Amino acid sequence: MIDKLIEKIIALQNPTCVGLDTDFNYLPEEMKAGVNGFEEAAKRITEFNKNIIDSVCDIVPSVKVQIAYYEMYGESGIKAFNDTVNYAKDKGLIVIADCKRNDIGSTASCYAKAYLGETEIYGKSSGAFKADMLTVNGYLGSDGIEPFVKEIKAHDKSIFVLVKTSNPSSGELQNLKLESGEYVYERMGKLVEKWGADTIGKNGYSEVGAVVGATHPEEAENLRKLLKNTFFLIPGYGAQGGSAQMLKVCFDKNGLGGVVNSSRGIICAYKNSAYAGMNYSAAARAACIVMQKDLSSVIGKMGR
Amino acid sequence: MIDKLIEKIIALQNPTCVGLDTDFNYLPEEMKAGVNGFEEAAKRITEFNKNIIDSVCDIVPSVKVQIAYYEMYGESGIKAFNDTVNYAKDKGLIVIADCKRNDIGSTASCYAKAYLGETEIYGKSSGAFKADMLTVNGYLGSDGIEPFVKEIKAHDKSIFVLVKTSNPSSGELQNLKLESGEYVYERMGKLVEKWGADTIGKNGYSEVGAVVGATHPEEAENLRKLLKNTFFLIPGYGAQGGSAQMLKVCFDKNGLGGVVNSSRGIICAYKNSAYAGMNYSAAARAACIVMQKDLSSVIGKMGR
Repeated sequence: MIDKLIEKIIALQNPTCVGLDTDFNYLPEEMKAGVNGFEEAAKRITEFNKNIIDSVCDIVPSVKVQIAYYEMYGESGIKAFNDTVNYAKDKGLIVIADCKRNDIGSTASCYAKAYLGETEIYGKSSGAFKADMLTVNGYLGSDGIEPFVKEIKAHDKSIFVLVKTSNPSSGELQNLKLESGEYVYERMGKLVEKWGADTIGKNGYSEVGAVVGATHPEEAENLRKLLKNTFFLIPGYGAQGGSAQMLKVCFDKNGLGGVVNSSRGIICAYKNSAYAGMNYSAAARAACIVMQKDLSSVIGKMGR
Repeated sequence: MIDKLIEKIIALQNPTCVGLDTDFNYLPEEMKAGVNGFEEAAKRITEFNKNIIDSVCDIVPSVKVQIAYYEMYGESGIKAFNDTVNYAKDKGLIVIADCKRNDIGSTASCYAKAYLGETEIYGKSSGAFKADMLTVNGYLGSDGIEPFVKEIKAHDKSIFVLVKTSNPSSGELQNLKLESGEYVYERMGKLVEKWGADTIGKNGYSEVGAVVGATHPEEAENLRKLLKNTFFLIPGYGAQGGSAQMLKVCFDKNGLGGVVNSSRGIICAYKNSAYAGMNYSAAARAACIVMQKDLSSVIGKMGR
């Protein structure tokens, strides 16, 4: 799946991922008015997402659906998550389920089935949530990651493991220095490279990627040098303070190596005076075009 | 909420948590026969869980519902999770949602609302999943944990942060030695103690607990000494190989300090020849009684 993402990035000259972190409160006033309860709210969120997807699907390669924003609306929210994932896939987008799942092996295999594989019921198998890629947390080590790698291989999927996250306090654990002289995030990165070692595709990147925040350029530069075969999912651009210049270090000499997420910067663009007069989906498209120009001005041509 | 759990443990002289990691495949053959699709499977899982809950709710203080086992049945699975949480609460059990959620602050606040707090829609707030306690992963540091602590304080809830997990490869990250001489898991433990510092209840334990596996007694003993105010959620007993003797070190001089989870050992007890002739709910109750005797023989009297 990583090669499919890379090919779409090259075709569109755009390494953007649109983050559908759709809080009901982000919706325009006219979509919120009179809404009562989770079911109605979730329907409006789905409608909002579908319109955003329709508006951007020909210019961006991927979307990231952050499940926390759906879980807070209960069962109805999960339906909205699922409908959003399926709609985005139908529109040809590569869908990253941002769930940061993690557990011991037996339990991790349930999560792996849920998002990347299939669940068997009395001899018949089907997929619960049909994402292309999933974010996971590696704090439990190899036996919590292997079940995901198994599903990746069986179903042509990818994962991104948290390595250096974009938030201000990420260093409290991730930047602790080990006796060996490495930082914790470096060790996690090396594990990621190992977990993906036998899934490297034709573009040189494996199906086991790393989450590396745009807000920490020093660590990102270090990780790009250390992890030659690891593709990065790069959050933190835009609303969190990361700039194109800061995340340039994540990319290789061919302008590849990462996909850059922006959530509020795109889905809430309609609230930005720069896009005054546009509805939310038109503003989202305009913001994607601005982001593409910004990123490509720094990264240069993508692909050989 | 931690004091309520401790009071129930003392009243029942039982620090057991029944893990409802209910894989459809665990159900008795007659409950599985002819079942087709996620919705039917999820209904059977709910029925199974309710019967287990009815059978054990007067002798155990708590259940832990592992959401991975529900997510793999899609939206229907989430309904089964929610129904199970609500049913267990109605029966007076303290319900731990085992979700190991984690993200940056803005997103963590969505998870915190989803499981511990309330979500607002157009001025009206309600809870999505009404758990009492939630497991979380601290790899992102303080700003990923603070939103949970906020909800804990507002709604009398608790969390358990992964510190030293029960799985074989937990040491790959958690037992790395830092330049400071500490291990990563010790540093995580100290952060947990800090995060909970102003939520300490009348029994001396805070609302921010730690997940500490029964399978690693050396680290558990070390953590009990280091973390005076941190209550432990102890997985790994039974099917994973942890014994009462191994987890004794998690308890203080008053026989308090932890709650011990067993999942397959209880919900699949009916498959064990020791409980031959019993149906699954009777076998689960019998297994809980055996576990209570085993734990209390080692821990001694619980409470002053």
